[in-house]
Amino acid sequence: MLIRLLPTLAALIISTALMAEAPKPLTDADLATAAELAKLVSENNPAYEIVESLTTEVGPRMAGTEQDALGVKWAIAKFNELGFDKVWTEPVTFLTWKRGEEHAVITSPYKQNIMITALGRSVATAPEGMSGEIVQFDTLDDLIKAEAGMVNGKIVFISKKMPRYKDGHGYGQTVTARSKGAIEAAKKGAKAIIIRSVGTDSDRLPHTGNMNYEDGVEKIPGAAISNPDADLLMNMLKRGKPVQFHMTLTAQKGEDYTSQNVIGEITGTDYPDEVILLGAHLDSWDLGTGAIDDGAGVGIVMAAAERIKALGKRPKRTIRVVLFANEEQGLYGGKAYANRHRAVLPTHIVGAESDFGAGVIYKMSTKFKPSAIPVAEQIMTVLAPLGVEYGANNARGGPDLIQSRMYGMAVVNLYQDGTDYFDYHHTANDTLDKIDPESLTQNVAVYTAFTYLMAQLEGDVGFFPPAE
Amino acid sequence: MLIRLLPTLAALIISTALMAEAPKPLTDADLATAAELAKLVSENNPAYEIVESLTTEVGPRMAGTEQDALGVKWAIAKFNELGFDKVWTEPVTFLTWKRGEEHAVITSPYKQNIMITALGRSVATAPEGMSGEIVQFDTLDDLIKAEAGMVNGKIVFISKKMPRYKDGHGYGQTVTARSKGAIEAAKKGAKAIIIRSVGTDSDRLPHTGNMNYEDGVEKIPGAAISNPDADLLMNMLKRGKPVQFHMTLTAQKGEDYTSQNVIGEITGTDYPDEVILLGAHLDSWDLGTGAIDDGAGVGIVMAAAERIKALGKRPKRTIRVVLFANEEQGLYGGKAYANRHRAVLPTHIVGAESDFGAGVIYKMSTKFKPSAIPVAEQIMTVLAPLGVEYGANNARGGPDLIQSRMYGMAVVNLYQDGTDYFDYHHTANDTLDKIDPESLTQNVAVYTAFTYLMAQLEGDVGFFPPAE
Repeated sequence: MLIRLLPTLAALIISTALMAEAPKPLTDADLATAAELAKLVSENNPAYEIVESLTTEVGPRMAGTEQDALGVKWAIAKFNELGFDKVWTEPVTFLTWKRGEEHAVITSPYKQNIMITALGRSVATAPEGMSGEIVQFDTLDDLIKAEAGMVNGKIVFISKKMPRYKDGHGYGQTVTARSKGAIEAAKKGAKAIIIRSVGTDSDRLPHTGNMNYEDGVEKIPGAAISNPDADLLMNMLKRGKPVQFHMTLTAQKGEDYTSQNVIGEITGTDYPDEVILLGAHLDSWDLGTGAIDDGAGVGIVMAAAERIKALGKRPKRTIRVVLFANEEQGLYGGKAYANRHRAVLPTHIVGAESDFGAGVIYKMSTKFKPSAIPVAEQIMTVLAPLGVEYGANNARGGPDLIQSRMYGMAVVNLYQDGTDYFDYHHTANDTLDKIDPESLTQNVAVYTAFTYLMAQLEGDVGFFPPAE
Repeated sequence: MLIRLLPTLAALIISTALMAEAPKPLTDADLATAAELAKLVSENNPAYEIVESLTTEVGPRMAGTEQDALGVKWAIAKFNELGFDKVWTEPVTFLTWKRGEEHAVITSPYKQNIMITALGRSVATAPEGMSGEIVQFDTLDDLIKAEAGMVNGKIVFISKKMPRYKDGHGYGQTVTARSKGAIEAAKKGAKAIIIRSVGTDSDRLPHTGNMNYEDGVEKIPGAAISNPDADLLMNMLKRGKPVQFHMTLTAQKGEDYTSQNVIGEITGTDYPDEVILLGAHLDSWDLGTGAIDDGAGVGIVMAAAERIKALGKRPKRTIRVVLFANEEQGLYGGKAYANRHRAVLPTHIVGAESDFGAGVIYKMSTKFKPSAIPVAEQIMTVLAPLGVEYGANNARGGPDLIQSRMYGMAVVNLYQDGTDYFDYHHTANDTLDKIDPESLTQNVAVYTAFTYLMAQLEGDVGFFPPAE
C-alpha cells in the first residue's frame, strides 16, 4: 500500500507545484523551429508509408484475433525501424468476441436479401436463424416511449439516418440506437434489434460497432443493415403490410485475451521523465483494413514523433507515442494505460490522440489551466498558417485519453474535418484509398509542431485531478 | 417461305418509298404541344414510383431466376395499371447461369480477405477452391503480348482502373479485360483470371458483368475484385514477393429458360401500324436491385409513353415500349425482338433506348437520312430548353436496339450524364438511392417531347437496310 501511495503523493505535490505558476512563454527560437519542422514535414514524412504498411501487411486487426497479435508485432518492429529510443509493450486484457456468419433476408411481402452485420458483442441467433415481424421506430427515444406490448416477440428496427457534419456530431445523435438499442428493445419484449447503420453514406456496406447489454435484461441479438437496405425496408414498410425478417448471426463470446499497448518514445534531453503523450489505437474492426480507423492516427502520431528526432530537433521532454489496444470494444487500452500510469500522470504534460481519420485539422481546442492560455495562443501562431484555428478551452481528448483526462491529465483536441469519415467508419470500406495523402501530411505537420512546442515548454499547462 | 417473304417485300417497298422523300416539317402546333408536355411532365410523372416499385417489389432480377419471372409479371401489371392500350409478351430463350458461392483470400505474403464476384458465365473452381500465384498485367493487351510460359498454371490479374468520364467512354477502354480476359489468359496457360472491377468507384463492392469463352480454348474461372482490393493486391505485389491467391467460385451453367420481352403500346390514332420504339431492359444483375441498370430506363420510357396518353395528347403513330429480357448476358431480348419483327422494322420509324442510369440528358444524336436532319433541328428547339444539345448524325442506339439498327431501323441516342454511373454499375450498390428524382424527371420530359414529335411527324427519318 505504501509503495502505491508514495508516487501518488509525489504526483500530487508535483501537481500542486505545477499548478501554482504560469508556464514561461515559448521562446522565439522554439516557435521558429516548430514552424520549420512543419515546413519540412510537409515536404517529407513517413505517415502514408506507415498506414500503407499496416493496412497491407496486417490489415484488419480486431481485438483478440490473430491479426491483433500481428499488429502488435508490426508496431514494435515499426517503432524500432523508425528509430524510436525506447520501445515496449504493456498488457491489456479483455474478453474477446467472434463475429461468425451473418445473413439476412426480408421474406415477406417481397423477398430480398439484406446486407447486415452483427454489432460488436452481440449474442447469436439460433443456428438456423430467427424470424420475426419488423416494428419500426424513428429513434431510440421513440422505442423507449413505446408501449411494451407492441414489440413483444418482434424485431425492432430503428431507422434514423445519421446526418453529415464536418465535426461528426451527427454520430452522437444516432449512435445510442446502436449502443443501447438492444437493452431498450429487450425491456419491451423484442426478440432482436436491427438498426440503420450509423453512417452518412449510401453504400451497401453495413457499419458495425460496439453494443451493450445490461445486467438483468435479456440479451437479444443486435445487428446493423446498410443504409440502402434500410431505405428498402422503409419502402416495404410504407406499403402497410407486415414485413417479415429472417436473420442468422453466429456471433459469440470468446476467451479472455491479453493484447498489448505498444509504446515508443523519443527521450527528452532535459526532462526525460516528463511526457508529451501522443495516442492512436492499433486495433480496428474486422470488416475493413482499419485505414481511417485508426491506421491514419497510427501513421500521424508515429510520424510526428519520428520527424522531430529525424530532423535533429531533440526535444527537452520525452515524446511518448502510445498505440492503444482494443479501443473499439470498450477503450480497454486507454483505461489500462491510465490505471497503470495513474501515479505519474501529473508528469504527463499533455495528451493528444488522433482517431478521426485523415481529414485536415481545422481547429485546436485545449484543456489548459487559465494561466497557460497564452501558450496556446503562441502555439496558434505556428498552427494558423497550417489552416488551424483556435476552438475553446474545453477539450476532452480522444477516446483512449478519457480515463487519463478523468485522472487529471491536460489534453488537446486537434479537430479533423470528418465530413466523410462516417461514410467508411466501421465498414469494409475502411481501406487505404480513403486516405488523402495531402491531408494526412497536414495532420503530421500540425502534430509535429504542436508536440515539439509542448516538449520545449518551460512549465506546465495544468493538471486537473478529480475532486474526490 | 412465301408467308415470310411477303412482309419483307412489303417492307422493302415501304422502305424505298419512305426513303424517297424528306419528311414534312413538324407543325408549330405539335412543337408547342411537345413543349407543353415537357413542362407538365416536369411537374408530375410516375417514373420514380415505377423504379421504386420495381426495385422494392421485385428487386434483383437476373435472367432465368425466380425474380426474372416476377419481373415479367410486375411489368405486365404495371403497363396495365398505367393505362397502356395493348400489353403483351414475346418469348426470349437462353441458357441460364447461376452465381453460387464466391470467396477469395490472399494467403501469402500477408493473409487478407478479398471481396470478389464471379463474372457472368464463369465456370467454377474446384469445390474446395483453387490456389495459384498471381501474375499481374496492366491491360489485356499486355497479357496478349506476354510470353506463354510466364502464366502457366498461375492466376492472371489485370489491374487497369477504369477512368471516369461524363460519357462513360472509359468503359470501352477497360471492359475487354472482363469480356475477353479469360480467353487470352487460357491461351497462355493460366488456370484462372481475376480483374480489377470495371468501375470508377473506390468501394469494397466488386462489379460483375458478362465474360466470354471461345471454342477450342480451355474455360477457366473469371472473377472481379473490388477496386480497394485491387489496390491492396497491387501494394502486396510491389513488395516483390510471390503473392498466393486462393479463390472459390461455385458458379455453374443452368438450364434453358424462356423469359419474355414485355411490351406495352399507346396506339396511334392515324398510323397505328407505324411504331415509335422506346426500349429499356427489364433484367438486371443479381447483386444490387437493378435501379440504375436498368430500373431507371424502365421508369423513364414507361412514364414518357404513359404521360402522352394521360395528358390527353393521343399520338398519330403508335408508341411501343419494349422492356427487353436478358440484356445483361448477351442482348437476348433485343436480338429476339429484331428477329421476330424484322419484316416490319421499316414501319418502326425510330428507336430510342434508355440504359445508362438516371443522369441528366445533355445531348441528342440521330441516325437519320440527310433529308430528315431539319426535323432533328426542329426537335432540338424543344429539347434545348431542357438542357440538351445536338450531337451528330452518328447515333448507334442502345444495346437492345443494336440488332434492329443493323437491320435498318433509324435510331437516336439521348445521352445521359454518366459521370457516376460506373460507380454503381453491376454492383450490390445499384440501388434506388442512387437515382436522383430530379434528373430522372428531366429524362422523362426529354423522352416525352421527343417521342411525341416523332409520333406526329408526317413522313420518316430513314431506313438503312444492310448492304447484303
